[in-house]
Amino acid sequence: MVYLAEFLGTAILILLGGGVVAGVSLARSKALNGGWIVVTFGWGMAVAMAVYVVGAISGGHINPAVTIGLASIGEFPWSQVPGYIAAQMAGAFVGACLVFLAYYAHWKPTEDPEAKLGVFSTAPGVRNPIANLTTEIIGTAMLLLGILGIGENAGAVSAGDADLSALFAMGFSPLIVGLLILAIGLSLGGPTGYAINPARDLGPRIAHALLPIPGKGSSDWGYAWIPVVGPIIGGVIGAFIWKLTNFGA
Amino acid sequence: MVYLAEFLGTAILILLGGGVVAGVSLARSKALNGGWIVVTFGWGMAVAMAVYVVGAISGGHINPAVTIGLASIGEFPWSQVPGYIAAQMAGAFVGACLVFLAYYAHWKPTEDPEAKLGVFSTAPGVRNPIANLTTEIIGTAMLLLGILGIGENAGAVSAGDADLSALFAMGFSPLIVGLLILAIGLSLGGPTGYAINPARDLGPRIAHALLPIPGKGSSDWGYAWIPVVGPIIGGVIGAFIWKLTNFGA
Amino acid sequence: MVYLAEFLGTAILILLGGGVVAGVSLARSKALNGGWIVVTFGWGMAVAMAVYVVGAISGGHINPAVTIGLASIGEFPWSQVPGYIAAQMAGAFVGACLVFLAYYAHWKPTEDPEAKLGVFSTAPGVRNPIANLTTEIIGTAMLLLGILGIGENAGAVSAGDADLSALFAMGFSPLIVGLLILAIGLSLGGPTGYAINPARDLGPRIAHALLPIPGKGSSDWGYAWIPVVGPIIGGVIGAFIWKLTNFGA
Amino acid sequence: MVYLAEFLGTAILILLGGGVVAGVSLARSKALNGGWIVVTFGWGMAVAMAVYVVGAISGGHINPAVTIGLASIGEFPWSQVPGYIAAQMAGAFVGACLVFLAYYAHWKPTEDPEAKLGVFSTAPGVRNPIANLTTEIIGTAMLLLGILGIGENAGAVSAGDADLSALFAMGFSPLIVGLLILAIGLSLGGPTGYAINPARDLGPRIAHALLPIPGKGSSDWGYAWIPVVGPIIGGVIGAFIWKLTNFGA
Repeated sequence: MVYLAEFLGTAILILLGGGVVAGVSLARSKALNGGWIVVTFGWGMAVAMAVYVVGAISGGHINPAVTIGLASIGEFPWSQVPGYIAAQMAGAFVGACLVFLAYYAHWKPTEDPEAKLGVFSTAPGVRNPIANLTTEIIGTAMLLLGILGIGENAGAVSAGDADLSALFAMGFSPLIVGLLILAIGLSLGGPTGYAINPARDLGPRIAHALLPIPGKGSSDWGYAWIPVVGPIIGGVIGAFIWKLTNFGA
Repeated sequence: MVYLAEFLGTAILILLGGGVVAGVSLARSKALNGGWIVVTFGWGMAVAMAVYVVGAISGGHINPAVTIGLASIGEFPWSQVPGYIAAQMAGAFVGACLVFLAYYAHWKPTEDPEAKLGVFSTAPGVRNPIANLTTEIIGTAMLLLGILGIGENAGAVSAGDADLSALFAMGFSPLIVGLLILAIGLSLGGPTGYAINPARDLGPRIAHALLPIPGKGSSDWGYAWIPVVGPIIGGVIGAFIWKLTNFGA
Repeated sequence: MVYLAEFLGTAILILLGGGVVAGVSLARSKALNGGWIVVTFGWGMAVAMAVYVVGAISGGHINPAVTIGLASIGEFPWSQVPGYIAAQMAGAFVGACLVFLAYYAHWKPTEDPEAKLGVFSTAPGVRNPIANLTTEIIGTAMLLLGILGIGENAGAVSAGDADLSALFAMGFSPLIVGLLILAIGLSLGGPTGYAINPARDLGPRIAHALLPIPGKGSSDWGYAWIPVVGPIIGGVIGAFIWKLTNFGA
Repeated sequence: MVYLAEFLGTAILILLGGGVVAGVSLARSKALNGGWIVVTFGWGMAVAMAVYVVGAISGGHINPAVTIGLASIGEFPWSQVPGYIAAQMAGAFVGACLVFLAYYAHWKPTEDPEAKLGVFSTAPGVRNPIANLTTEIIGTAMLLLGILGIGENAGAVSAGDADLSALFAMGFSPLIVGLLILAIGLSLGGPTGYAINPARDLGPRIAHALLPIPGKGSSDWGYAWIPVVGPIIGGVIGAFIWKLTNFGA
């Protein structure tokens, strides 16, 4: 059940997240050139809504960097990590296929193959592996710190009243986690497009390679390792900063 | 009473939703060219405010696709479906008339007849019936999944405390449903302008045909079936995905 | 005490609301040409913050149309109406003087006298008294319906638990009322700039007439009655729609 | 522990706040020219997220003007003020170094040295010390009034139920304080870029002077006193207005 929830949640994440990039960048879309505020709110609300739909079942990680980061500090069982990651990857792939369908009539009129790849996967503004990796590490460390901080506040509330804790954890923290994604996108998304999630980048990149997208170009496999490795490193670092500062103790 | 509430709620939805499109597209409006972020926040807040005003009475469906989707999985009585839909259609028509009045001085200076129709009804970026229908189906399936997910979280809260459930259901979920509309608009609105609601499109289209709008063009009846049929199909699909994954059980 | 609160609240409203218009329209401001989304979020958050500061004391009307609308349906004592309105007018005047100071260095480099007046008072996109009045009536009717709907939800919550009602009324409804202002601005602000508040328009217009603003033009007194009369009529209409539909009973 | 929290919180504030300015102004960033709505939401969410991470430990001042303002009316012990300020300054410096790293590949392609300094510190639109100081005073007075008003609402809630007070104070007020920063930025940020925080401006300015930024220009030390002195004066004024109006009594 939790794996189905992670699958569905990640599919929603990519349907809405990839969708907003398609909206602002594919020809003849009504959202064309909607700007960075559209992109960042789109991804923020994508996370919020995915967590509203599945968070009560699986916790709504929808991100291997979150799953691994939490496991690394003992907040999630390692035994479930492989299943979570497999479900997240499969969900991201399916979500990308849904974006392909939702914008079906817009691939052909779009000329730029990089714009088409950008709907699926991230690419750096300046190609510099060490710098790009650093950006992804910093962004994902911030993600884990934020998630743990928000969860800790829910825990502090729950100390007095379990129902209030449930109200916060299920009623509001999905929105606040969505706003955390908004914050990271607005502030740290400029250099690499903030993958901060290996499944978010790799799943749709595989979909880009396999789908019959008219006029598509390279899937840019040379860059593909950075949005996988960077977020995993960053997620573990963020989780350990939280653990070491001992705020959650 | 519930029918009056659906009527008033849908009128508010269209007054504010049609209003924001008028604002960004009619000549000499102060919101002219406000962009996609203005349009999507406008519709999102339109839904939120309509549900704040009438949600406590009727549940605030304000959308036949929601009413039918909920009925299809046994979450709403079929006997009330015709009345709800009639009230929603009438409310949408009246809301469109109010938009006509609120922007009364701006129809004549606006030259483009398509911009005028766009205040009332949706039109696709690329005209392709199967693709357009698919987009509306995906968007409305997402709508029902989101609504059911948000409601389920309220239910989970209520398991422990009915007052907290009421606080969430009446105090916050209208806002979160509004943000769901924002999310769908940002991410899936690009191809067809996200009707995701038969009353939202058909009621105002009838108003466009009947109202004495200076320099208006065709009401584009050839497209009118897509934003009616697509949302109904999508709403049922979304509701069944929720039911089949059994998250609400 | 309540009058001091209304004075301070309305001063905050105009400091932040007039401030955002100054920001997007005065020369050499960093927010120059920030667009309609900046203006509408600015006014929405202005209302939210004013109500957070003073709402617990006076209810945070900060708008004669709200005060009169509530009194007209028996939800506020007529005996306090004159004092509330006087405090709101004085606060709006002082708030406008603070905007003048906060943007002190930007009046001289700004050439357009209409842009300067626009920081203080509203003006229509198309000058048409009946149409402009109608727009203000519709917008303010929506304001009162929204406020009463949001308050009713708080009341419904309170039926079970007075502490939860306080949590909603003091903790969240200021934000939701701010989002109602955002909604009205996005959707109905295009034609007249949404005064929807006599004090918001008249107090700063008097300040514009009196302050030593370099290169200022006319205070446009010919239009001044519309954003006073329209909101009062609209507020009463909105309150009566609420009363007649009996949703609050 | 509280000092470590202030250090980490202010580092997060500057990482995200400086980051958003880097995003919209450095060459080849994907957020380039994102506009004022991106900048102001970026800083607003930066504050919200910093307070979610550390607010439960230290109160989340992350601003010497807040610390001094609260101390000046007896709401915070003077004995902790020096430690708080030292931690905030150090955190701001480290946060600025992280922005330097996150945007590492973007300094060289950016030509304008003023854009580079703008990532770190504020600068006025029109250079006029008295006017600039006044703007910072007004903005920071608004900040303290807002913080105290939001906190007072939490206090009023807590009168009845300590758990609900914790829910509001830890669960929601970080978001609402973030929206207060959004409000001040939208409305009062135009003239000076709203430092409203001595650590936010001085810490990163020192980082700008020390870091090996390619093609950097002057650190503009002549202006540096204004965003230090103005916010301190404004914070004390705002706190005293709150105290004198006695709303918190």
